[in-house]
Amino acid sequence: LTALLSPTWFVAGETGSWRILRVEAVKGDSLPAARRLSVCGPGDDVAGAARWSLQGVVGHARYVQSQEKAALGAVQPALGRESATCAAFIPIRKSAAWWELAQDERRAILEERSHHIAEGMKYLPAIARRLYQSRELGEPFDFLTWFEFAPEHADAFEQLTALLRRSEEWAYVEREVDIRLSR
Amino acid sequence: LTALLSPTWFVAGETGSWRILRVEAVKGDSLPAARRLSVCGPGDDVAGAARWSLQGVVGHARYVQSQEKAALGAVQPALGRESATCAAFIPIRKSAAWWELAQDERRAILEERSHHIAEGMKYLPAIARRLYQSRELGEPFDFLTWFEFAPEHADAFEQLTALLRRSEEWAYVEREVDIRLSR
Repeated sequence: LTALLSPTWFVAGETGSWRILRVEAVKGDSLPAARRLSVCGPGDDVAGAARWSLQGVVGHARYVQSQEKAALGAVQPALGRESATCAAFIPIRKSAAWWELAQDERRAILEERSHHIAEGMKYLPAIARRLYQSRELGEPFDFLTWFEFAPEHADAFEQLTALLRRSEEWAYVEREVDIRLSR
Repeated sequence: LTALLSPTWFVAGETGSWRILRVEAVKGDSLPAARRLSVCGPGDDVAGAARWSLQGVVGHARYVQSQEKAALGAVQPALGRESATCAAFIPIRKSAAWWELAQDERRAILEERSHHIAEGMKYLPAIARRLYQSRELGEPFDFLTWFEFAPEHADAFEQLTALLRRSEEWAYVEREVDIRLSR
């Protein structure tokens, strides 16, 4: 039987294995500064004084087509690699106009015109990525994306985020906070 | 700014404006029998002894393409019509195999091969329909669909559900409960 989805919590405060290096409001309101971040699953104890916390679930792929899925599956690295001591946590909310588009319109903007999937794939396996869905949970962001990479790939990661932020898809981004971390 | 999504609760027990006529397990486990059902939004008081409750959010359309969206928008009736005294509440869970498919594969099964959208459209405006997403909320069902129609369209509704249950898409349905109601 299908397992029920359970949320992952990103808890910012005084504890956690990730040290927060900077918090930048790319668009809209920022999030409060904090020293450390914990990533908590169902078995973890989320107790303690949090400055803020956000939750999301790893659901199914919303835009990836079958050939892309096969290509991604062949090169996508796991999280938690020993060498990947740098991370970025990027919560994003898109506009009402985005959510009112039909599936084919959203796909065309995301991939055919903004090349989100194809461009991201060029940075694999250097940059590991996991997308958490938050919109359905009534959260202030629609997605939480977590990236992990080794220090030597930090410049490549800057190129990727800069490229995506210039894309047509990003015109629908209403709020974006870019949080960098290390462990 | 985009409003945050909030869940709708379907609460079965001794109170509520809908009388439960029957509860049928179409596939997998049923739900406990109860006399009445309330449909509760953010402002409502969900207190009281419930036999069971299920929640979902009205999110964005997952498969509908732009031409279909325009066609649906032109004929889709609202819920709560005076004449629509019959309702069906159908919680469904799909299999892990469904959720592992890519977007284009799920769309091809749902519409190009099972004609879910096109067949449903033939029953508009007689049968009003609203889809609630539950999967991301960690609920036991992936979707909750609520239908409303006048008694003279009850036979048409049986035709529609029978047709969909014979489709390729329904091979991925792992659990389905069909609850009929009147007010």
